Amino acid sequence: MATIKDIADRLGISVSTVSKGLNGASDISEALRQTVLDTAIELGYTTKQMRGRVQRKLCIFVENMEYETPDQFGCDIILGFRQSAYREDFGVSVVPVTPLLQSTEKYDTYMLKNGYVGAFALGFALQDEWMEQFGCSSIPAVLLDNYIKKNPSVGYIGTDSFEGIDDAIVHLIDLGHSRIGLINGSQGSMISDQRRQAYIDSMTAHGLPFSEDTMPYGYFVPDAAKPHVDNLLSMGITAFLCGNDLIASGVIDECTRLGLRIPGDVSVIGFDDIPVSAKLDPPLTTIRQDRIALGKCGFYTLNSLINHVSISRTLLRPELIVRGSTGPLPTP
Amino acid sequence: MATIKDIADRLGISVSTVSKGLNGASDISEALRQTVLDTAIELGYTTKQMRGRVQRKLCIFVENMEYETPDQFGCDIILGFRQSAYREDFGVSVVPVTPLLQSTEKYDTYMLKNGYVGAFALGFALQDEWMEQFGCSSIPAVLLDNYIKKNPSVGYIGTDSFEGIDDAIVHLIDLGHSRIGLINGSQGSMISDQRRQAYIDSMTAHGLPFSEDTMPYGYFVPDAAKPHVDNLLSMGITAFLCGNDLIASGVIDECTRLGLRIPGDVSVIGFDDIPVSAKLDPPLTTIRQDRIALGKCGFYTLNSLINHVSISRTLLRPELIVRGSTGPLPTP
Repeated sequence: MATIKDIADRLGISVSTVSKGLNGASDISEALRQTVLDTAIELGYTTKQMRGRVQRKLCIFVENMEYETPDQFGCDIILGFRQSAYREDFGVSVVPVTPLLQSTEKYDTYMLKNGYVGAFALGFALQDEWMEQFGCSSIPAVLLDNYIKKNPSVGYIGTDSFEGIDDAIVHLIDLGHSRIGLINGSQGSMISDQRRQAYIDSMTAHGLPFSEDTMPYGYFVPDAAKPHVDNLLSMGITAFLCGNDLIASGVIDECTRLGLRIPGDVSVIGFDDIPVSAKLDPPLTTIRQDRIALGKCGFYTLNSLINHVSISRTLLRPELIVRGSTGPLPTP
Repeated sequence: MATIKDIADRLGISVSTVSKGLNGASDISEALRQTVLDTAIELGYTTKQMRGRVQRKLCIFVENMEYETPDQFGCDIILGFRQSAYREDFGVSVVPVTPLLQSTEKYDTYMLKNGYVGAFALGFALQDEWMEQFGCSSIPAVLLDNYIKKNPSVGYIGTDSFEGIDDAIVHLIDLGHSRIGLINGSQGSMISDQRRQAYIDSMTAHGLPFSEDTMPYGYFVPDAAKPHVDNLLSMGITAFLCGNDLIASGVIDECTRLGLRIPGDVSVIGFDDIPVSAKLDPPLTTIRQDRIALGKCGFYTLNSLINHVSISRTLLRPELIVRGSTGPLPTP
């Protein structure tokens, strides 16, 4: 377990100040106290006082998403959620979910049996058994990137794909590109459909050419991109938008294999800004999802549902992070 | 000013229990304490302790919306916001806004001069001067029913028109209707555009006929409906969706004047569920916006922005309230 000194070192403050923050002393600011508590939760430090509080229990279900280490997509989402939940006196459990668990136990039963008053569901797929059960459950739940119709107990949170994709396309237009393709994630995923529609809307708004062939579906993994790269290049595409950063890394690999320079010959933009994206060669220009904020927003939305404020959806702003994988249109 | 007894009477509990709630005694539940505080705020009761707290200040700007009495649209929105804000130690001012104020003082200047750390803006029109200034301000603000593109400091909240309109159309289909018209609010309002698109989407999804002529724009007032009623009836329309409850009341008046029975000959559905809707003759079937929840949601979203969680939009679930203005399709 982390020590008070670990917290002090992380924040660059004295051990006695950390101690004041943990004990709620009145001579440090509320903002600093929250920062100390946030860091304590991040590092896994707990005081007897923290452990002794009577807490209502929330559950984060995780499927198809890695979260154990800070460079994995789910880690900061869970951290942001836990930090916000702690402030409102909720305890949080993280439960990996498999199709097997979903087929052996009903969602409502699982929640009631374990005394959870709300759930935050990450990475569920449309065909998951619990997805249908979310549709008729009256237990408050928030789903990342999945929308459940007409159930006032269930909310959806995510990042606004429309603004993100438009920001990326405007950036490419500023660099002189007009032939822009989208190598998307899996067909049938809500997020893929959203990013596809965002691409259509933005290309249309800017008067740029596109067709069914310039926006193929793939999967959310690097290798899925490769079969599409050659075809899109042959159509004159000079810039690739990608359904996520992993697809973008596959596009960079494939272009490099074909002897193309990035961004000299081709520009590439990802989506998500996972930690590895800044370390790619070249570093990836990408549409950032703020994962700590997603976690916090997941908690705010869940806490609203618990308080009978029936939020249907909450979307965060994306942010375009410009790095080395985009550059001016090559002169012919 | 209200007294402790007023609070006790409202809640049906003893004066001593109210007193415990106001003073944070440990032998009443947290939920009851919150209810007591909420009611104190609703009735305008404050203790010395409540007045003495150092509070950050928020501002609710109101334009084109009445809010002074409980039967007016804005009243409960403001109440829900104040109740939530109080829990987080914010003070709230309500400021009526005119075009004159907006042209004499810049939004940012007004906020800074008065020490407000965030704003909740109700009823602004697209052509308002401050609307453009919201686009580039870095002060956290939340707008009801108005969306500001690409500014991470400004969020939008509202009620999901798409689910609401679809619920209403499904209800009419269940009653046997298929010729359904939409008498909308003002052209150029974001909400009118949203409800129009929702009508188009839902009619398309259910395979029902519609055209430009079945979805005329009007204004958000009763008299605006009248010119359209005769024309829609002549096209065979048997059920009217309306852009809000005021338009619906105008449709009921006009149909009655034409000698038609509601719901015997024609069905009518409003949007909002303002308090007077239940008292119309017949009582109005309508798509409810939960105004207390809108206010709370406005605060949650604003508080998130203040805490650097950049929420772009938050939508609430609507609820179809079935009353006497809808009935089975008349048999020919």
